Amino acid sequence: MKFAVTITLKKDVLDPQGKVVGQTLKNIGIKNLNSIRQGKFFEIDLDENDPVLGETKVKEMCEKLLANQIIEDFQIKKI
Amino acid sequence: MKFAVTITLKKDVLDPQGKVVGQTLKNIGIKNLNSIRQGKFFEIDLDENDPVLGETKVKEMCEKLLANQIIEDFQIKKI
Repeated sequence: MKFAVTITLKKDVLDPQGKVVGQTLKNIGIKNLNSIRQGKFFEIDLDENDPVLGETKVKEMCEKLLANQIIEDFQIKKI
Repeated sequence: MKFAVTITLKKDVLDPQGKVVGQTLKNIGIKNLNSIRQGKFFEIDLDENDPVLGETKVKEMCEKLLANQIIEDFQIKKI
């Protein structure tokens, strides 16, 4: 069973990396860009058939390692 | 108009970063993990009301800067 995990910076946390990417996009001629924020993405393949148990396990991974919950939010989706 | 862009390594490309994360998850006691692969995520806010034009613009950003199409795939979703 596969899960997609998206980790994004919380709304009020500055994203210098995203700012650089946004500036670079403008420099190469991209217009109408309001903002771009960068995050992380994980594709997790679990040996687990129960979607509820699987999601609980992925949540545990996020809380223990993948996401820093002080500055980041995470979102889990079964794929 | 907002778009979510997910950039992942192509299936046959090695992902050492993901391997390290997977090993670390196992070390902290996570079981049933088959594999984990890391990617990038961007949240793009465009000053554009036409979803088709918006997606074209985001595709251009991916092709020109965000994704390295030799080793990476990208996926665009309106959010």
